[in-house]
Amino acid sequence: MARTCLAVVLAAGDATRMKSSKSKVLHTVGNLPLIAHVTRAAAAAGVGKVALVVGRDAELVTDAAGAGLDVPVTPVEQTERKGTGHAVLMARDVISEGFDDVVVLYGDAPLISPDSLTAAIDQRAQGADVVVLGFRAADPTGYGRLIEKDGELVAIREHKEASEDERAIDFCNGGVITFSGPEAVSLLEAIGNANAKGEYYLTDIVEIARVRGLKCVAIEAPEEDMMGCNTRAELAEIEQVWQARARHAAMLSGVSMIDPASVFLSFDTQLGNDVLIEPNVWFGPGVRVGAGAVIHAFCHLEGADVGPSAVIGPFARLRPGTELGEKAKVGNFCETKKAKIGDGAKVNHLSYVGDAVIGKAANIGAGTITCNYDGQNKHLTEIGAGAFIGSNSSLVAPVRIGDGAFVGSGSVVTMDVPDDALAIARARQETKPGRAARLREKIAAIKALKSASRHQ
Amino acid sequence: MARTCLAVVLAAGDATRMKSSKSKVLHTVGNLPLIAHVTRAAAAAGVGKVALVVGRDAELVTDAAGAGLDVPVTPVEQTERKGTGHAVLMARDVISEGFDDVVVLYGDAPLISPDSLTAAIDQRAQGADVVVLGFRAADPTGYGRLIEKDGELVAIREHKEASEDERAIDFCNGGVITFSGPEAVSLLEAIGNANAKGEYYLTDIVEIARVRGLKCVAIEAPEEDMMGCNTRAELAEIEQVWQARARHAAMLSGVSMIDPASVFLSFDTQLGNDVLIEPNVWFGPGVRVGAGAVIHAFCHLEGADVGPSAVIGPFARLRPGTELGEKAKVGNFCETKKAKIGDGAKVNHLSYVGDAVIGKAANIGAGTITCNYDGQNKHLTEIGAGAFIGSNSSLVAPVRIGDGAFVGSGSVVTMDVPDDALAIARARQETKPGRAARLREKIAAIKALKSASRHQ
Amino acid sequence: MARTCLAVVLAAGDATRMKSSKSKVLHTVGNLPLIAHVTRAAAAAGVGKVALVVGRDAELVTDAAGAGLDVPVTPVEQTERKGTGHAVLMARDVISEGFDDVVVLYGDAPLISPDSLTAAIDQRAQGADVVVLGFRAADPTGYGRLIEKDGELVAIREHKEASEDERAIDFCNGGVITFSGPEAVSLLEAIGNANAKGEYYLTDIVEIARVRGLKCVAIEAPEEDMMGCNTRAELAEIEQVWQARARHAAMLSGVSMIDPASVFLSFDTQLGNDVLIEPNVWFGPGVRVGAGAVIHAFCHLEGADVGPSAVIGPFARLRPGTELGEKAKVGNFCETKKAKIGDGAKVNHLSYVGDAVIGKAANIGAGTITCNYDGQNKHLTEIGAGAFIGSNSSLVAPVRIGDGAFVGSGSVVTMDVPDDALAIARARQETKPGRAARLREKIAAIKALKSASRHQ
Repeated sequence: MARTCLAVVLAAGDATRMKSSKSKVLHTVGNLPLIAHVTRAAAAAGVGKVALVVGRDAELVTDAAGAGLDVPVTPVEQTERKGTGHAVLMARDVISEGFDDVVVLYGDAPLISPDSLTAAIDQRAQGADVVVLGFRAADPTGYGRLIEKDGELVAIREHKEASEDERAIDFCNGGVITFSGPEAVSLLEAIGNANAKGEYYLTDIVEIARVRGLKCVAIEAPEEDMMGCNTRAELAEIEQVWQARARHAAMLSGVSMIDPASVFLSFDTQLGNDVLIEPNVWFGPGVRVGAGAVIHAFCHLEGADVGPSAVIGPFARLRPGTELGEKAKVGNFCETKKAKIGDGAKVNHLSYVGDAVIGKAANIGAGTITCNYDGQNKHLTEIGAGAFIGSNSSLVAPVRIGDGAFVGSGSVVTMDVPDDALAIARARQETKPGRAARLREKIAAIKALKSASRHQ
Repeated sequence: MARTCLAVVLAAGDATRMKSSKSKVLHTVGNLPLIAHVTRAAAAAGVGKVALVVGRDAELVTDAAGAGLDVPVTPVEQTERKGTGHAVLMARDVISEGFDDVVVLYGDAPLISPDSLTAAIDQRAQGADVVVLGFRAADPTGYGRLIEKDGELVAIREHKEASEDERAIDFCNGGVITFSGPEAVSLLEAIGNANAKGEYYLTDIVEIARVRGLKCVAIEAPEEDMMGCNTRAELAEIEQVWQARARHAAMLSGVSMIDPASVFLSFDTQLGNDVLIEPNVWFGPGVRVGAGAVIHAFCHLEGADVGPSAVIGPFARLRPGTELGEKAKVGNFCETKKAKIGDGAKVNHLSYVGDAVIGKAANIGAGTITCNYDGQNKHLTEIGAGAFIGSNSSLVAPVRIGDGAFVGSGSVVTMDVPDDALAIARARQETKPGRAARLREKIAAIKALKSASRHQ
Repeated sequence: MARTCLAVVLAAGDATRMKSSKSKVLHTVGNLPLIAHVTRAAAAAGVGKVALVVGRDAELVTDAAGAGLDVPVTPVEQTERKGTGHAVLMARDVISEGFDDVVVLYGDAPLISPDSLTAAIDQRAQGADVVVLGFRAADPTGYGRLIEKDGELVAIREHKEASEDERAIDFCNGGVITFSGPEAVSLLEAIGNANAKGEYYLTDIVEIARVRGLKCVAIEAPEEDMMGCNTRAELAEIEQVWQARARHAAMLSGVSMIDPASVFLSFDTQLGNDVLIEPNVWFGPGVRVGAGAVIHAFCHLEGADVGPSAVIGPFARLRPGTELGEKAKVGNFCETKKAKIGDGAKVNHLSYVGDAVIGKAANIGAGTITCNYDGQNKHLTEIGAGAFIGSNSSLVAPVRIGDGAFVGSGSVVTMDVPDDALAIARARQETKPGRAARLREKIAAIKALKSASRHQ
């Protein structure tokens, strides 16, 4: 029978060092709030319920924690700040619902991996009452040390209180503690505050459990799993680790990145096989790229579905609602938004295509603009299969250009164009011999006048 | 009473390894010449005067050293190259004006921090006659070692002449030496050139001072503070350190950067609280960004004032003279220059806005161009509050579009448009049924002809 | 007399871990296939012939290996996979043509430097029969160790079979082995497959040679030289090393890069003295940049010839066939293709210039588009010296704008414009007082209607 597990996630911190107008755990990594990374890792490790200890921005934090999660999240409010032991006890009622295991997680430590949590729960299943996640530190100065004896964890010793011998230990407390659900409330209540700061420390649970004859163990996890975030500089470091993991996984799955460090992925980016990504590409949320597509340098994608073997950029921006067919192309200095672009269609240069449906193999000339907005409403532009839109045209929506139709360069199209029809809307050219020379003289005179008035 | 301090800055180097058409110290870091970093650090540490030892590009170097500085800079010319001791003596007249302290700095070592200089001056105040800035080197091979005894500096030993024991020392000479102003000329004159190269080495000052019964000490500073620049590769390394420091300071002050390593700051960049900067943003000189503004990926800003909660990019270029109001937007593939853009106004897509004043909440359609240049003069475009400029319009300056006015898409506007008026300037559309099909045949015939002529 | 040398290059690997639809050695680094890096290094070291052991994509691999090489490449097919010793023997016929030296290289290790190969051949000239390239590994675990005695190489011991003492050796086998041409076939045939995997290992050649009284030596080369590529993550690492080398060489030659890590070079990029490159620039194949040119941030160049003191970007894309004269400018959001742009000419903003010839000092206004494509053919636009093209103009090719001619902003030019003539092709402006206010009401009514129908 599967074990039942509750995660108590601490997300009430003030985080003044972030100097932010919003809660720290709402800041994002991979375009997903920190808190959501934590709850998703918990769910992936088999946690069945989350008790979310909230303070600042309680409602927003709860929403972010639960969005897209198939595990219930129960917020509990923390009004006083009296240490981690006290904070966990805010979830007393939820803990008392009865779970095999309770794991304490931190809303500002988003890199925790499901594997590490699963390993801790496995230890519980094998008889440990308290399981502490630790990490090997290159420089352990400042961290609590994990004191072990005969394979059991004896104590978590704060750096300040550690002896010389203990300070030589490089196995450090990562903060994530899993313990027996049935014993949980009793253990937590036994934590005292007879210390310098008068706070209740969750780490005391180890010695309390030992006194009761319970078994405590420490297991090792990567240090990165437990990186916490107190400043925006640390947030950037966490982002870097997260991105490095995501890029590496993408490359091993068959995606080529010439400069992975310059490719930014979102939590939900999907990249097909043999996709090639040049340097400096930004994937916002909601992007899917089909097999064999090429994303040239300097692209910005968000909410876009890129078909197989499509070619994007360089310097393309695909905004939400963009759907590109197979072998479609969106080239430099082009922006698309709510645009369905058919197989093999091309939008190659300096164009804005918004609220549009473009048929297969249509060719949209350089500088084409769909004039979709009247100041209050957005209107649709439809372009048929095989249509040819001459360069620098303006398509004033709502408008329909038929299949195989042809629009002359520089036209402002305001009326529908039937299939296979030709539309031109431009003024007649007037050419005045010799007039440029005279015009230049006139312009030079204006310049002289301006200059003179400046120097008066 | 405050101490008086003179900085002698050596900036006469030839720098052939830079392979440059200009003096090494005119190359920039954070868009400020190397030499200006040094003089600014000196001024920030309380130095009251700078003697600048110049050679190549003397005038340009002097100008760069003094620009924006509230401390006088006196150039002294170095015509011969006989070592650092000799170079410092070029400033003999200035030194003789009488200062409590003289500090020797290097024009090609721009990372020197005011803190390190202040620490050296403090040592002077506490009785040391000569104060050498040193650093701990991971690999000291090649550096001069700082030989200390009983807390005093005994000698600076060149690597070549160091004994085995001395080579084990990792405390190295950083070159920056602060010494007694009253003793300065006498000490410098005592430096000899009885060595292999026949040069006068400033480092000899330590042993000379010791012989006279003066007190020498060495104090530690970060190795980065003393990084010098001999090649463009080293220049790039120094830029990297400078940028890392500037980014870190910005993040700790409340600015979010998703990928700090890809954000380039200038020496005078000002970023408000809760500003969010996506990857790949370039801040040229003279940029100020208000609180809560968002700078999306791939932006290039210079000489721009961005209002609070404004949104920029991705792919926006703000050139000098851009002033954005609160919540104003400049979107993708837009360029602004000498443009005052009101609160909440939007320039979202593929536009060029130069020499323009745009009122509050105006909407500038995609592809709009202010035609501000006649080949010789720049002319002004004024757009009123709440005006709506249809997409792909050309506004031929000088021209004024009134408040609440409306310009039809694709118009070329050459005359003023009154408030609340509608202006349209576009040709009537002609649609010719079936003509696209025939046109395609004609085009195909041209293609066939071209192909045939190529294969003849 | 110069020695004759054959390189046997192993390029038949399956590379399933690349998860790629093409052979591993066809993936690129610095925009050149891996295999071409190897054959070029061989040629640069004086190798006179290449025997290419191919499997997957044999023809494409052979083409890539030989392209642009002045040394003949003979493909030999490997049908079975029985180890490196067996693979080299596939080239038996070529080896038997008779060479002083045979060197075995790997198609997936593109960082091998000519210097390392030359050093190995020098050892041959000095009497060694077998020369193994080794490297010092920070962590040698897993690598074959080079066991030396009295300056000779005794054996290559696999990690698994190494004794504790041997495992302490950090000198590891890099795989590149050079041996006596006359002895080659005999040595290779002596390799057996009496091992766990039943494969023929090239490394056995050392012990075989020793038994015959031949002299084996190991020489050291940088570890990077021997980096192989098995996954796309490793490919990205190799790219990074290659780029770092190329950037460093460019900087030492007198090119400034503010952020070298963000500049991507190709194998054939040529950069002149005092060129300045801002962050985030991509050089595709075939780019040459003249002295003193400035490439601003966010540029993408390919097949372009940039004249001295030209200024590019930011946000410019130069495509193949672009030739810029001295001091020419291509600015933000501009694309050029097959475009010859004269000395001092400017294409500064949001323009597409394709299939065009632009004269000296011409000024192309913002938003100008050369309408060069009719759906099937490309046509030429010619613009004379000193011509002025007003902003947002469309030039419908084929068309010629004469020297000193002037095109009014927003014109669609379909007919030639003589020298010094003025051409205007735009509609008359109609201004309707008060109509914008009424239009806004109408638009608001549409909005209300839409909103109502959505909520029904």
